[in-house]
Amino acid sequence: MKNQFLEITDPIHDFIRLNSTEQKIIDTSVFQRLRRIKQLSGAHLTYPGAQHTRFEHSLGVMHIAGMAGTSLASKKQMPGTDIDDIRLAALLHDIGHGPFSHLFEEVLQKKKRITHEQIGKEIILKSEIGDIISKTTDKKKINRLAVGEGSKQFENEIISGALSADMMDYLLRDGYFTGAEHAKIDHNRITNSFEVYKNKLALQSSALVNFETMMISRFQMFKAVYFHKTVRAGEVMLLEAMSLADDHLGLSSMNAQEYVKQTDDTILEKLTSLPETNSELKAAKKIANDYQDRKLFKCVFEKTISGKKTFGKNTLKQFRADIAKKSKLAENQIFIDTTTTHSMPLAPSKKESSSIILIKKEGGKITPQIIPISKIPLVSTMSGKMNILRAYTQQKNRNKVEIAAKSILGEL
Amino acid sequence: MKNQFLEITDPIHDFIRLNSTEQKIIDTSVFQRLRRIKQLSGAHLTYPGAQHTRFEHSLGVMHIAGMAGTSLASKKQMPGTDIDDIRLAALLHDIGHGPFSHLFEEVLQKKKRITHEQIGKEIILKSEIGDIISKTTDKKKINRLAVGEGSKQFENEIISGALSADMMDYLLRDGYFTGAEHAKIDHNRITNSFEVYKNKLALQSSALVNFETMMISRFQMFKAVYFHKTVRAGEVMLLEAMSLADDHLGLSSMNAQEYVKQTDDTILEKLTSLPETNSELKAAKKIANDYQDRKLFKCVFEKTISGKKTFGKNTLKQFRADIAKKSKLAENQIFIDTTTTHSMPLAPSKKESSSIILIKKEGGKITPQIIPISKIPLVSTMSGKMNILRAYTQQKNRNKVEIAAKSILGEL
Amino acid sequence: MKNQFLEITDPIHDFIRLNSTEQKIIDTSVFQRLRRIKQLSGAHLTYPGAQHTRFEHSLGVMHIAGMAGTSLASKKQMPGTDIDDIRLAALLHDIGHGPFSHLFEEVLQKKKRITHEQIGKEIILKSEIGDIISKTTDKKKINRLAVGEGSKQFENEIISGALSADMMDYLLRDGYFTGAEHAKIDHNRITNSFEVYKNKLALQSSALVNFETMMISRFQMFKAVYFHKTVRAGEVMLLEAMSLADDHLGLSSMNAQEYVKQTDDTILEKLTSLPETNSELKAAKKIANDYQDRKLFKCVFEKTISGKKTFGKNTLKQFRADIAKKSKLAENQIFIDTTTTHSMPLAPSKKESSSIILIKKEGGKITPQIIPISKIPLVSTMSGKMNILRAYTQQKNRNKVEIAAKSILGEL
Amino acid sequence: MKNQFLEITDPIHDFIRLNSTEQKIIDTSVFQRLRRIKQLSGAHLTYPGAQHTRFEHSLGVMHIAGMAGTSLASKKQMPGTDIDDIRLAALLHDIGHGPFSHLFEEVLQKKKRITHEQIGKEIILKSEIGDIISKTTDKKKINRLAVGEGSKQFENEIISGALSADMMDYLLRDGYFTGAEHAKIDHNRITNSFEVYKNKLALQSSALVNFETMMISRFQMFKAVYFHKTVRAGEVMLLEAMSLADDHLGLSSMNAQEYVKQTDDTILEKLTSLPETNSELKAAKKIANDYQDRKLFKCVFEKTISGKKTFGKNTLKQFRADIAKKSKLAENQIFIDTTTTHSMPLAPSKKESSSIILIKKEGGKITPQIIPISKIPLVSTMSGKMNILRAYTQQKNRNKVEIAAKSILGEL
Repeated sequence: MKNQFLEITDPIHDFIRLNSTEQKIIDTSVFQRLRRIKQLSGAHLTYPGAQHTRFEHSLGVMHIAGMAGTSLASKKQMPGTDIDDIRLAALLHDIGHGPFSHLFEEVLQKKKRITHEQIGKEIILKSEIGDIISKTTDKKKINRLAVGEGSKQFENEIISGALSADMMDYLLRDGYFTGAEHAKIDHNRITNSFEVYKNKLALQSSALVNFETMMISRFQMFKAVYFHKTVRAGEVMLLEAMSLADDHLGLSSMNAQEYVKQTDDTILEKLTSLPETNSELKAAKKIANDYQDRKLFKCVFEKTISGKKTFGKNTLKQFRADIAKKSKLAENQIFIDTTTTHSMPLAPSKKESSSIILIKKEGGKITPQIIPISKIPLVSTMSGKMNILRAYTQQKNRNKVEIAAKSILGEL
Repeated sequence: MKNQFLEITDPIHDFIRLNSTEQKIIDTSVFQRLRRIKQLSGAHLTYPGAQHTRFEHSLGVMHIAGMAGTSLASKKQMPGTDIDDIRLAALLHDIGHGPFSHLFEEVLQKKKRITHEQIGKEIILKSEIGDIISKTTDKKKINRLAVGEGSKQFENEIISGALSADMMDYLLRDGYFTGAEHAKIDHNRITNSFEVYKNKLALQSSALVNFETMMISRFQMFKAVYFHKTVRAGEVMLLEAMSLADDHLGLSSMNAQEYVKQTDDTILEKLTSLPETNSELKAAKKIANDYQDRKLFKCVFEKTISGKKTFGKNTLKQFRADIAKKSKLAENQIFIDTTTTHSMPLAPSKKESSSIILIKKEGGKITPQIIPISKIPLVSTMSGKMNILRAYTQQKNRNKVEIAAKSILGEL
Repeated sequence: MKNQFLEITDPIHDFIRLNSTEQKIIDTSVFQRLRRIKQLSGAHLTYPGAQHTRFEHSLGVMHIAGMAGTSLASKKQMPGTDIDDIRLAALLHDIGHGPFSHLFEEVLQKKKRITHEQIGKEIILKSEIGDIISKTTDKKKINRLAVGEGSKQFENEIISGALSADMMDYLLRDGYFTGAEHAKIDHNRITNSFEVYKNKLALQSSALVNFETMMISRFQMFKAVYFHKTVRAGEVMLLEAMSLADDHLGLSSMNAQEYVKQTDDTILEKLTSLPETNSELKAAKKIANDYQDRKLFKCVFEKTISGKKTFGKNTLKQFRADIAKKSKLAENQIFIDTTTTHSMPLAPSKKESSSIILIKKEGGKITPQIIPISKIPLVSTMSGKMNILRAYTQQKNRNKVEIAAKSILGEL
Repeated sequence: MKNQFLEITDPIHDFIRLNSTEQKIIDTSVFQRLRRIKQLSGAHLTYPGAQHTRFEHSLGVMHIAGMAGTSLASKKQMPGTDIDDIRLAALLHDIGHGPFSHLFEEVLQKKKRITHEQIGKEIILKSEIGDIISKTTDKKKINRLAVGEGSKQFENEIISGALSADMMDYLLRDGYFTGAEHAKIDHNRITNSFEVYKNKLALQSSALVNFETMMISRFQMFKAVYFHKTVRAGEVMLLEAMSLADDHLGLSSMNAQEYVKQTDDTILEKLTSLPETNSELKAAKKIANDYQDRKLFKCVFEKTISGKKTFGKNTLKQFRADIAKKSKLAENQIFIDTTTTHSMPLAPSKKESSSIILIKKEGGKITPQIIPISKIPLVSTMSGKMNILRAYTQQKNRNKVEIAAKSILGEL
């Protein structure tokens, strides 16, 4: 064999095979860094098994994307030569992620500075990884594909969106490592049922039940893990501590070189050893230490918001101020969380297609059917349940904040 | 209900129920520290999923030990009131473990200083954990049981040894998180088949096949994970770096207070930021950084040693010196590893019983049968294969060391 | 041990332990007969793995019912002495089932003759099984419990209904053997969360997600297996053949002694060797042979009926006549099937409670909450999708019947 | 798509895809008959889940054989065009099997008449199935391949032998359906590691551990299922009943047309309704009825034979006569069973290769290594344990036969 393959044992996919370009990429220290960024930030404080990282997830997405590509190529709906590019883009789709995944991103965005896509672009185009890619393919093309802007829409959709390798791997993996698995996602069946229709990714109608199962799993994981009351308590603490210490630590003004040295632990180390030179740093340090010892904020109020109402940053700020006033506590003792925050991995992305294309083949006849995802019965029910508003505070303020929050937010 | 129970979701046991004493113990920061000590030190560099920690494992051992206790109590072979003590001892059996689990232990032992049992004792008797225990039971009893010196031998054996909750949990858990699972261990069947015979733990003969399966799994895990060539490469690097930096960092002279602040990451951080003030520290720092970037030592020689021959520390030192001389390299470029080192979790412990007692019940008649483990056919074959000697070196010295090692060690 | 236990290996529950009374019951030939009645009648023609029988299922229901009883007894909500009775009733809840399970039942009911509950009663009270029971408990009590008429309502609900051991076992088992598993049902968690509230079976609110998962699984299994187009094709054929041959074979006029000799194979053997002495028997024989060679009816029309509309027997008969007339075929070439037929295992039973009681425990306070099952969001969505009407015919008549059915049933 | 594929859901392989030729073959009634021949004859009396049939197994072997072919074709070690032929041969490798699988075969062989390979040949060459094959490929070639006599040795070995699709499927399937699974067989890894060396099937050395695991599983399944004392009790009864009734029923003199109508149930029906016209038929009928009611023979003697000693038919006959004499019972009350009987699926076949070829690839260099299977440590230990001699009798004769058997066979 000319090509030596490396095989990595993985509990989700049994083994993942890498070609030599892929091996070289994962051997860079920028990529190895992903081993130190947990996939689910603070969920391990509630689900002790959830220690898995962006590293394994990235390999898994590459693996499933490759299965999707192979399926389409075998049906002559995509040139076989695209498979390797899709795998590379999938492998690198999270390379720009900062520590604590989506949480760090939210801190960055508050200052309207850089996004993880921009960092990712810099890494793919300008680092050692770019050089490795350039030896076999076009690094600009890989970058576009990795951020969902490739020229073939169905290839973008293989990497991210409601039918994507990304979602299949994270639902499978998060369910496996947390132990909170409720559904059996058949990624093998789904990728085997992929079709291309008018340049978009479609699904054979016989696999609709598998798509539904995946959507149900997403909803169950949303409730049980991603937006679990206690899981979010830890994440709200990390967000708050990073925000308070941002000016001092310069989190949101790092350049790419500094950025790619940060991991969950380096940030936590910085936070727990902050100087106590002002009240903000003092508060940040206290929160970080409490996080580490699992003394978590308590949720004192929760409400499912009906309809499609969402709350902007200013509204949320106002809620905080109002509850503080009413409960006679400082604002920095009150924490508001919603499902529509940027740090929620499941907030429907702007780019996510709002419909799914089903292909029915019978007697040689092909009938496409475009279904708005919101019209799939189980899915529409679920999405109505995913808009939630919560208030948290420290253990000692529970009663006061509970009363104030009820009176301010109870009528929304 | 008077007793509130907490239920923790765990991928191995579905959910683990804790009573209020157990909850208070796991909420101490000494116990929370176990979340930052990986169960398999450096195995995640080879098996990316192996990110699991001593924290989850400790909960799992408690859970299985409780099943074992319940089984014996239901057969009136043990008072039901012992169950809670056994669970506590199981929960705390690893509390004295240092960073990188068995590796740190080996560094400590080189200086013949403290052991993890002694640290554990200090924690159980003198820390906050001791106070929590004292409210419901005798902390000295729990400590004795946790280190295998309780007055009822079968209770010690529930916690550690060839039939123990410890072994069942780690084989199940390590197999699950690495993905290297080869056998299906039925801990439910095994604990249900426990009996007490002359104060020792025994097994109903109908569960012999399940015990054999567990022994096979232990052997497959030994080959595939615990003593895997590349897994050990990383661990040999950590051992070497800690040894070289020990005097500077004072690793083996910490008191218990300092000790319980150390985790995998604090030690790695110390190692990667060592001052380069002498050649030893320089070497240690280089090794730690290479470890972190996964530039691992290469194994250039491997030999299965027949018979029961083992090599003492001095012999191993001599091998190192001889290979260095022959290959014209410095001694600190050569690394010797054997399966009989203290850092191998599977080295047969002194206390591990060398035989298993089977109980046959037929027509009301009870026949005990004491079988030396070494006489169980599959097991005896395997143990003969577990005595292995290896030489490692850096990538650049591969050829030289390979030749020298062959000539020096080839004839053993 | 005074009591010798037998352990039976089972893929769903690892092993099932039986006491000596239970062993004696399963050793009777009346009980052994259940080995020859497939759990899912004709589903194996579509899902080849679905060869499992009422025998294993009965053992499984006994096992889960025992777990439920143990859970309640450990919370002092039920006397421990009830556990064995609940297990016996669960073991025998299907003992009156005829060949092809629910299908045979439907044939019996057409003649308004005996039900499987009546047969079950006769077996429990008057056969050898009754004698075995009487040695340790009251056989009348067991019979009442087995048919859902015991004096403690929560015990009836352990055996059948939306939270029952019966449903948990069949969903787990049917999913495992067909391979059509879509959800991970945690029967361990559910039974551990059982409570008794005002003599009814209730669930701790923390297990609501597990109940929802089970309801979703039920719906997915309904679509994928129980009411799968091709699965039902086979079952409609069996129904038709048995109806046509009933007068000749006397299926619905058997006494209990004859009844308990019948199995799937004896009936199929009778049907495939019918004399062709009249057109009905000729048709029945042809259908049975086609069934055996898997030459199944084709579904030419399917419609999901909105709302709660159901169709009585006479309406369905009229549909058949109308379609026959329109397509110019004999009535016996047209077959109408609906989800509300008696042969559907999932038709909501009259006795199934329409609400679920959730118990919230916080700070020693117990809050019960009674939720109509139809108000649980996912469940209400699903039940609206379970009212389906279909038309089948032989391969050769496909086109004609398709056109006629569309015109007659399309506007409903 | 020109080719319509059918997908069949299977619990072992998730789904199995069939092309149109394969679909046509499984739709014949000769192939459908395999649905009524249990894979494990009488094992369901001990393992209630073991109801699976030769039908599912045949699909599974086809599926794995296809994976093996695809793996070799992707490495250019086999023309891709061979894949379909290998799949067909795998699908049909058991088509000649009679009722009760290997048991019926043994009855046939006693009369030195036809073998299942000969029946298979007749079916493949002369029935409807042959006509279907001929439309796309050469039926003679398929027949040769199905019986292990194809011109490419490695293709024969894909279908049967120690590395074969047949063995992988039956170990996986029998473990799954019985619930007696002890090992995790990674057929995906094994087929991916296939190589061809000098026209023989070889394995990459990195997959040796997976091969070992499979061999261990085979041994555990041998002990726990295939040669389980009670499982064999049922099978010895079937053998005896068929032998006694052979002359009357003409089992071993059927022609192919009659043969392919027989299933487990038709034979059992014939046996349980034998006329009691002579003592042999009377005995056969009694045994068959006892089998059906699970009143099984009891094993009163068991001995593991050391070394390679085997016993010929005449020796076994003599044992029977001697024990009968000594216990003063009729010979037909004594039943001798050995692991070397033809009805044992695991008796090492004459054609099974006695060595395995490992291929090591390092730095572009290929090193083959031929290892006698008997030299693989775990395997050699196991095979020494697989030569077992047993004596059975009816419940009522237990004591007498136990004493006699001990005295006659105890010294072997």
